[in-house]
Amino acid sequence: MAEGLPAGAVVNLRTPVLWSGRNGGFGDAKNLDRPGMPEMKQTLKIATRARIEMVDITADVQKTVDRQGITEGLCVVCVPHTTAGVTINENADPDVQDDILGHLTSLVPRRDAFRHGEGNSDAHIKVSLTGSSETVIVERGRLVLGTWQSIFFCEFDGPRKRKCHVTVLGR
Amino acid sequence: MAEGLPAGAVVNLRTPVLWSGRNGGFGDAKNLDRPGMPEMKQTLKIATRARIEMVDITADVQKTVDRQGITEGLCVVCVPHTTAGVTINENADPDVQDDILGHLTSLVPRRDAFRHGEGNSDAHIKVSLTGSSETVIVERGRLVLGTWQSIFFCEFDGPRKRKCHVTVLGR
Amino acid sequence: MAEGLPAGAVVNLRTPVLWSGRNGGFGDAKNLDRPGMPEMKQTLKIATRARIEMVDITADVQKTVDRQGITEGLCVVCVPHTTAGVTINENADPDVQDDILGHLTSLVPRRDAFRHGEGNSDAHIKVSLTGSSETVIVERGRLVLGTWQSIFFCEFDGPRKRKCHVTVLGR
Repeated sequence: MAEGLPAGAVVNLRTPVLWSGRNGGFGDAKNLDRPGMPEMKQTLKIATRARIEMVDITADVQKTVDRQGITEGLCVVCVPHTTAGVTINENADPDVQDDILGHLTSLVPRRDAFRHGEGNSDAHIKVSLTGSSETVIVERGRLVLGTWQSIFFCEFDGPRKRKCHVTVLGR
Repeated sequence: MAEGLPAGAVVNLRTPVLWSGRNGGFGDAKNLDRPGMPEMKQTLKIATRARIEMVDITADVQKTVDRQGITEGLCVVCVPHTTAGVTINENADPDVQDDILGHLTSLVPRRDAFRHGEGNSDAHIKVSLTGSSETVIVERGRLVLGTWQSIFFCEFDGPRKRKCHVTVLGR
Repeated sequence: MAEGLPAGAVVNLRTPVLWSGRNGGFGDAKNLDRPGMPEMKQTLKIATRARIEMVDITADVQKTVDRQGITEGLCVVCVPHTTAGVTINENADPDVQDDILGHLTSLVPRRDAFRHGEGNSDAHIKVSLTGSSETVIVERGRLVLGTWQSIFFCEFDGPRKRKCHVTVLGR
């Protein structure tokens, strides 16, 4: 399951890194398997840089909404991993992210008492606490988020190369 | 970010207070910006009365479903704040709400060890635990909830004047 | 609220038990109340076997998607109980489920300090932590889940006979 960062990967703090797949940053956007068919799901590719980290993916999720051309509806962000999740929280002060991750770690420390042999049970538990998906309203083509809200991909067992699916439903 | 309750606000225990915006309780229902266009999103306005509180908004969410005229589909409740969330839990015995809030506070106490300067990191963390949105099935025009379920707006850093968006998708 | 298992119920570990209602495993599939009308919501019936347990319902949710005939869209799983929830996590190693449930119990122990008289406040709190619903993308008629992901019905106050609603929206 574990994938390391490719050598030479440029990873900026607080900036999501879209690792290059066959279609670039968006894995399924071109729908190579079924040419001519629109694809409802698009896949962000994110290279995380630490074991535990919150990566702001709001701008990339908005780009997906832009591509789908749906102006009124719902946008769903789904993380297909069991040691990474997604949450919506404050983007203004990075200290908030540190406090969230620090407190989550104090609630669910990485320790030896767990039975699962891979040593990452804490990450699985954190996922069930934060959740694997988020739903955001889309209005006039824009994600409806509060002033201080961002969508964060939550890495709990990195660094890894990760995926994050985005689907927009509406009109 | 913080907004106090207006002087003289009438706030009943266990009763949501819809503060009056330009359109009354529902901020966007009339869609003043684009007359003639239906608006998928409606916005509840809630005045909370304590720092931490669960406000039952089920009846108001149902009213939004009624207005939309959609009988089969999904209703999504999104909180556009980072120190308030939403959860679905028991509405029968108010002690359950006290137990939930009390235990959440014991898991995430308000203390000085957090880095975020505003002193409300505990509220941010509680939001990532309970979540910022809830999705409820709509059938025959009614929210599909269990006998004991209500939708609760979760205030974690009040009292404040809050918003809560509701969108219904379906047929 | 509490319902015991019927005598003689056959309950296998790690296998969901669909208890027989009037329509068999899927309560509303035939829409007896409105013949001829398609029903968007279908209801799984699950007999849990322990007080706290994660039941893998992925195959049954996929069957619901198959029945609906929707190939591109969203599948929403909603639990209509206040002492049971739903989460997505690893299905490969059962130790992960034990670690999740064990740690949740250490975070929210069943104890006497709660005010709610039924003695199951811990279950209510666990529901607000894991959530009452999950949203999964549907593509080409299949639930879009990662290699290690399964959808788990989370029993926190069993054993009981439970329901779980599934709705698919899309095209």
